[in-house]
Amino acid sequence: MTPFTPPTQDQLLAIRVNAGIEQLAASEKFAHAESDLVEAIVEGVGQFAAGEFAPLNRIGDLEGAKLENGVVRLPDGFKEAYEGYVEQGWNSIGSSTDFGGQGLPFTLACNVLENLGAANMAFSLLPMLSVGAVEALEHHGNEAQQSMYLPDLISGKWSGTMNLTEPAAGSDVGALRSTAEPITDGEHAGKYKIKGQKIYITWGDHTLAENIIHLVLARLPGAPEGTRGISLFVVPKYHVNADGSLGPHNDLRPVSLEHKLGINASPTCVMSYGDNDNCIGELVGAENRGLMAMFTMMNNARINVGNQGVQIGERATQQAIAYAIDRVQSARAGSPDKTPVAIIEHPDVRRMILRMKALTEGARALLYYCAGQVDRGTLGDSEARTRAEILVPLLKAWGTDVGVEVAGIGVQIHGGMGFVEETGAAQHWRDSRIAPIYEGTNGIQAADLVTRKLGMEGGEAILALFADIARDASGEPALAVLAQDCAAIAQWMRDEASLDDRLAGSVPFCTMASVAVAGWQLMKQAEAVAAGAAPALLETKPVTARFFLDRIVPEAAGLKASATAGAEGLYTLSPEALAS
Amino acid sequence: MTPFTPPTQDQLLAIRVNAGIEQLAASEKFAHAESDLVEAIVEGVGQFAAGEFAPLNRIGDLEGAKLENGVVRLPDGFKEAYEGYVEQGWNSIGSSTDFGGQGLPFTLACNVLENLGAANMAFSLLPMLSVGAVEALEHHGNEAQQSMYLPDLISGKWSGTMNLTEPAAGSDVGALRSTAEPITDGEHAGKYKIKGQKIYITWGDHTLAENIIHLVLARLPGAPEGTRGISLFVVPKYHVNADGSLGPHNDLRPVSLEHKLGINASPTCVMSYGDNDNCIGELVGAENRGLMAMFTMMNNARINVGNQGVQIGERATQQAIAYAIDRVQSARAGSPDKTPVAIIEHPDVRRMILRMKALTEGARALLYYCAGQVDRGTLGDSEARTRAEILVPLLKAWGTDVGVEVAGIGVQIHGGMGFVEETGAAQHWRDSRIAPIYEGTNGIQAADLVTRKLGMEGGEAILALFADIARDASGEPALAVLAQDCAAIAQWMRDEASLDDRLAGSVPFCTMASVAVAGWQLMKQAEAVAAGAAPALLETKPVTARFFLDRIVPEAAGLKASATAGAEGLYTLSPEALAS
Repeated sequence: MTPFTPPTQDQLLAIRVNAGIEQLAASEKFAHAESDLVEAIVEGVGQFAAGEFAPLNRIGDLEGAKLENGVVRLPDGFKEAYEGYVEQGWNSIGSSTDFGGQGLPFTLACNVLENLGAANMAFSLLPMLSVGAVEALEHHGNEAQQSMYLPDLISGKWSGTMNLTEPAAGSDVGALRSTAEPITDGEHAGKYKIKGQKIYITWGDHTLAENIIHLVLARLPGAPEGTRGISLFVVPKYHVNADGSLGPHNDLRPVSLEHKLGINASPTCVMSYGDNDNCIGELVGAENRGLMAMFTMMNNARINVGNQGVQIGERATQQAIAYAIDRVQSARAGSPDKTPVAIIEHPDVRRMILRMKALTEGARALLYYCAGQVDRGTLGDSEARTRAEILVPLLKAWGTDVGVEVAGIGVQIHGGMGFVEETGAAQHWRDSRIAPIYEGTNGIQAADLVTRKLGMEGGEAILALFADIARDASGEPALAVLAQDCAAIAQWMRDEASLDDRLAGSVPFCTMASVAVAGWQLMKQAEAVAAGAAPALLETKPVTARFFLDRIVPEAAGLKASATAGAEGLYTLSPEALAS
Repeated sequence: MTPFTPPTQDQLLAIRVNAGIEQLAASEKFAHAESDLVEAIVEGVGQFAAGEFAPLNRIGDLEGAKLENGVVRLPDGFKEAYEGYVEQGWNSIGSSTDFGGQGLPFTLACNVLENLGAANMAFSLLPMLSVGAVEALEHHGNEAQQSMYLPDLISGKWSGTMNLTEPAAGSDVGALRSTAEPITDGEHAGKYKIKGQKIYITWGDHTLAENIIHLVLARLPGAPEGTRGISLFVVPKYHVNADGSLGPHNDLRPVSLEHKLGINASPTCVMSYGDNDNCIGELVGAENRGLMAMFTMMNNARINVGNQGVQIGERATQQAIAYAIDRVQSARAGSPDKTPVAIIEHPDVRRMILRMKALTEGARALLYYCAGQVDRGTLGDSEARTRAEILVPLLKAWGTDVGVEVAGIGVQIHGGMGFVEETGAAQHWRDSRIAPIYEGTNGIQAADLVTRKLGMEGGEAILALFADIARDASGEPALAVLAQDCAAIAQWMRDEASLDDRLAGSVPFCTMASVAVAGWQLMKQAEAVAAGAAPALLETKPVTARFFLDRIVPEAAGLKASATAGAEGLYTLSPEALAS
């Protein structure tokens, strides 16, 4: 596996052009996000990730997390790297200054994760999940909970988890069965006894942080069925005393770890709560409003997963380019000189590498555009908030599809060496495959797009996005056509298509819309670079943007027939006939 | 992992409609391939594969092949299953009757491999490689070599390997450095001492067969550089005595096994020949003509790898459908009935399953169309031989891309369960990934298409293919458009494009052409079914063919811009700039 070189210049460009960090810094809230600090953060976390997280990526895959005597162990080096991460303050970038956070834009928190995840995707899930717990408590915790849990979660001294899934409740969270029984007397009066088993709990146990704060969805006695009967609880691994010191171990434990395709350094736990009927938790927010509380975090969590597509794309691309420069094989076709050349000189290898770069940079442009809209929303810009809502499923679905595709091209460029595990190319591909699945499968993202998001402002919100692209793309005919196609599909979906028709076309439509937005944002990058925004990218950006606009954009237009084909053909056959 | 159910009816349809088995049986050579025998073979090998090979697929992945004390060991059960395979005569279907083979069409040999590989892709590589050795000796061995090696290779009592690759000689076989020194006196006079190390030798060692016949490429003293200085040698693991009994162990050994992403039951060996300067081999065919001899086998070998895309597609599809019928999650969107349903009822899951089926059936149609053309070529039809030459890169490249895509959709349908290894969905995806790489990467297939194949008959051969499709597709506008696009691109490549331009567009063009042919052959299947050819498929075939023609065909048309974009944009940046 090649070392990780942080793509600092491209990140800074995206943070400036697509997120618009300078406008954000013009606000009072984000006034401290001035240019020097932004550069220091992007450079600093990039160096930290490359130096401390990246060297653990391969050993983390090979040795993986292990459950030994009821405790999850990581390979040597993870604890020290995590301590360095906490000490340098990287965990606290985007969190509230009220509890020790730095209060910087979400955009910069995205950059921290981008660098950590490109260096070591499995490891970066630890801080990623903690951020979710912080957000949940910032928005829904009471004062006591906030002051008890937030400072150490924000610093990273403690980590956090999200406990939604149960064996029969995956995409359908409302089907969950874990329970919370009110405690009416004794030292825990006012709290709840939690009971149930949760699966797929990322970093559900480990000893890198001193305590683990589990956020658990469960049902109160007599709660309504389905999503309206779910409440959110905070359940610490170790009880926290009033003075902030740690008390006894709570009645919860990791039962087993999943044997996974990838991200092997990330312990994916089956967690059991209340085996001895003594797992104590506190209600967060109102009764039966747990899923709503989770939804608050969902947008950012989905952005963070979309970000993983950028991460794995960047890492796989770097690895493939290094290999293609190093590996000598065959002379150039048609050349009178029969000397073998580095494979990067062969046209189809060039094409593959440019495709990797263009897709990764396109996904990054979309990521920071989306993050910037979130930050504008935080500043009160409701139009930006709506725009972010529309962008989230695009980024999550297409960004993670890009991660898998790019990592797959990386394997291909390595040839036979890509199929043996020693190079690391295969690990990127394996790691990448979880991102289209978790945090709402990409099918669920696409469903969200063609139902809730398409419905915003009666469809005008999404049409405004495509109109913005078409307006700016007057000099880019392929992009203009794609934006117009997207608008026509959106109108058809809104005005004519049945719900089933919309869902049947949701995934191809989601891809088309994503490519249109990414192409648009890359075009803006290229314009900014031409205007002097990033001298270091003056040579490369026009080429990758051109590749995206000339090849990837027209390809997406080919999905129009699938997007509008409707559901009828999907239901001609019964499940039995499909299985026959 | 779900059991494997052989898709017997769809295979028989493809063998009849796309390969045209009845016309083949009208020839003297294949007269015994009458309908009853064909059905007996397809049903018989399907049952054998499902019963004996499929149950070993998961354990083969989990335990894998292991090198212990210099010998490769397989998990329990492999030896018995292989013995059953040999006893039932499945190894000898397509081989010459002169040495105990059944002399049946290649089409039926493809069916044997299709069933074996769908049941257990890693295991099926053992017979697949043996077939290659048989073909090499049938075409290039002298009489003594044929009578010494062929009977036991054809029965399967012995297995065969192909030894091309060396660390510095992958895609560029001509760079290989292994040597063969003539022996001038002693018991081995007239033979050669082989010396060198070969990598990626599939089933390079094992004890399932009694002997292993290695076909090894090496250089004679003073041989010209490059591909014109390579000779082919037959190098048995155990020397064979004049009476056919086995003599002492030859000086060759497996040095190590690769740690791979998938096909773990297939031992991928680093082989060392002549460590003690005593590895004895015989020259096969003429001096310095070894690569030409290998080329004879290459077409069929590439078809056999393209076949693996069909295999993994079939297996992954069956697994995903079973899961989607079994897994209950969420109510139908928009339904007043809030009862959760099997996920196969959700529109996007239906879309994914139909895509899996349509792609797999399309690849199967292409496979048997190609195999049938090979058989016609064997009967002396030179037009069919040319057509087969054109189809081979399409099948190998697109067929294996389909395998990866379909297996990936299978993972996605399983959701979180797709990322844990227990279900087997992830294994299919890992196994599938080798096929686009070996036997000539898919980039090399595409290069072959736009150079050698495009050049056949001055371009008229490939244009005739697209004209055939356009002619038949008068009722299918999308297919007609795609065929016309392909023809236009082929003409542009022939008449205007530089070699680099052609290579730059080769992969997208290869995909377009493949989808056009597969759609055409699926359309023919649907027509035949409508005319009564396969009552069992009367319900399903129109639906999968429709899906392919309405959705996958227009998608391929979206690649036109990439196919014709040319090479200029690929060389704007230097390798250093790409790496920056």
